[in-house]
Amino acid sequence: MIEKILSITKRTRSTPFTRRVEAAGVKSYAVYNRMLLPAVFESIEADYWHLCEHVQVWDVACERQVEIKGPDSQRLVQLMTPRDISRAQELQCLYVPLCDIDGGIINDPIAIKHTKQHWWLSIADSDVGLWAKGLATGYGLDVTVNEPDVWPLAVQGPKAEQLMARVFGDEIKSIRFFRGKMLHFQNQKMLVARSGWSKQGGFEIYLNNAGLAEPLWDELFRQGRDLNVRAGCPNTIERIESGLLSFGGDISGENNPFECGLDAYINLDADIESLSHAKLTALKGHHKNQLIGLMFDRKMTFTETKISFLNQVIGNITSEVWSPKHEKHLAFAMLQREYLQHHSLIEIDGISGRICELPFDFEN
Amino acid sequence: MIEKILSITKRTRSTPFTRRVEAAGVKSYAVYNRMLLPAVFESIEADYWHLCEHVQVWDVACERQVEIKGPDSQRLVQLMTPRDISRAQELQCLYVPLCDIDGGIINDPIAIKHTKQHWWLSIADSDVGLWAKGLATGYGLDVTVNEPDVWPLAVQGPKAEQLMARVFGDEIKSIRFFRGKMLHFQNQKMLVARSGWSKQGGFEIYLNNAGLAEPLWDELFRQGRDLNVRAGCPNTIERIESGLLSFGGDISGENNPFECGLDAYINLDADIESLSHAKLTALKGHHKNQLIGLMFDRKMTFTETKISFLNQVIGNITSEVWSPKHEKHLAFAMLQREYLQHHSLIEIDGISGRICELPFDFEN
Repeated sequence: MIEKILSITKRTRSTPFTRRVEAAGVKSYAVYNRMLLPAVFESIEADYWHLCEHVQVWDVACERQVEIKGPDSQRLVQLMTPRDISRAQELQCLYVPLCDIDGGIINDPIAIKHTKQHWWLSIADSDVGLWAKGLATGYGLDVTVNEPDVWPLAVQGPKAEQLMARVFGDEIKSIRFFRGKMLHFQNQKMLVARSGWSKQGGFEIYLNNAGLAEPLWDELFRQGRDLNVRAGCPNTIERIESGLLSFGGDISGENNPFECGLDAYINLDADIESLSHAKLTALKGHHKNQLIGLMFDRKMTFTETKISFLNQVIGNITSEVWSPKHEKHLAFAMLQREYLQHHSLIEIDGISGRICELPFDFEN
Repeated sequence: MIEKILSITKRTRSTPFTRRVEAAGVKSYAVYNRMLLPAVFESIEADYWHLCEHVQVWDVACERQVEIKGPDSQRLVQLMTPRDISRAQELQCLYVPLCDIDGGIINDPIAIKHTKQHWWLSIADSDVGLWAKGLATGYGLDVTVNEPDVWPLAVQGPKAEQLMARVFGDEIKSIRFFRGKMLHFQNQKMLVARSGWSKQGGFEIYLNNAGLAEPLWDELFRQGRDLNVRAGCPNTIERIESGLLSFGGDISGENNPFECGLDAYINLDADIESLSHAKLTALKGHHKNQLIGLMFDRKMTFTETKISFLNQVIGNITSEVWSPKHEKHLAFAMLQREYLQHHSLIEIDGISGRICELPFDFEN
């Protein structure tokens, strides 16, 4: 990973957890929604193994919430996504690609329904608040759009449930995947959901009182000492092994959700008002490229991100990493479907790799 | 200035000039519109003195262009800003606060009119493209909104005109402040404007061919050798001395333009369709706070950004720096107007400072 020196200006926001993150020995940051996101503690590989075996506390406060409140809230959220949200339950979390009228992806947040008149979008790295507010203004919707003082903290890893039960009580165990409950920490009620940007299991705590950030962090560490808890962050190795896409890295406004394999989150047959439905209906089955996985038996050093075949560029690598667990080099790539229809292998730098559906299946 | 290690992911874009910036010995970066913006070369103070005396080449490609094209372009730009743009000339640059219906500042770009049906917004650090596209979608406007492949390069400092004339010809000299011309570099036609984020004079080149980035950089350095040209970047000392505000630092969506002293860019009497006009008309004269300058005779170390008076918080410091030229400590602060009506001094950490209008007047 390339590293530079980052000058912190007021435009780069710290979080209520930053002091603890620093004390935990963070080695580098990324900037995400103009906020610090820890990137490495010990090393990417050491962080990875620890995440797969124990439990980590992640400062993901940069997953900013776009809060939409008012009578037209659900209508606005539905306009933004091609996924049918009409049957969402309260405190349910839904992965929702947001698309513009051309089908381009604006962001891929988790939508959280508090009530029909009160939604949060827990966003990836783009100003969804401006998009939502622009639409609301233009359509004359009766909503307010805000960024509330909510600071997500993720607890991830196989021992996450055990740790969370100690801090929030056994009710944690009854929370199903992508569901939330309002639970207490020091008399403050906050949303806790079973979710997070890893496939190691865990929770996200939507802390709504910055003054409790350090007490919460400290309590998780106190209760988790025998579980080998430590500070962590979204991990490149783990997320690529798990097939988790990064907005801004693997997908962008240039892509439509079919290209990105997000078909499961598009309900074209639903009778809903979604501003991308017309375009996506026209695009379906006709998109030119497809995001797929590549698997190589040896460690690769890609000299460029472009992928060529018979001297023609047919795609590009969007993410890649060596998997120490599976001893494979893994990549995500956007490739022409025409190539994919006729090939199950691809040659890069003279090495042949297997084309895989995502998420990767390491059994076969 | 606080410095951290920045992990460069694909979300942090480099620019067509980054290789030259690195070769020139950049010491640190900021992240601006998810793109690298050089922050320091030699030191902030050494960079400052050089900027005031010679000529610098700045990679400000992170000033992304939001391109608005189509029959409703001018209508959309006018909706976004309370400034009357109806009499703008072609290739004129206008500083335009963009405001939402509550009068909050979305961004403060330079609007550049190519034609009535073709505008650029050269933006500060927020996703104006999403705001513009949301409004266009909601209002059903006949426009397209894009981020074109345009990479601004600034040439700033007292010798900027001399250097630019060598590279682009004497026509440069006829460009008035905040006006542009289409000029050639190696047979490529591009916009060159007399503008830039310093008060040392200079130009911004809107390079529209990434392949010419290094040839252009190299030519500026070749032609500028005897002018003592070097790589630079927006400089905190210079911009505070000059009273230049930073969006995201000094002003944000929480502020209206009156608070920020931007009255000159609000035309409430003009017969225009601007979505903030109603709210700004109601706010005028009733805003609670005012961004002003503070000047101290000695070097300050502010222990906090909050400013108190008689145990009440009355404002906060948004930027501050020691001016080596004027031997004053300068700050921008947002202060309650009620305090300002009765005081011309402020005491911070036991030291008394003078309250000044912006830009600072160092003669008095």
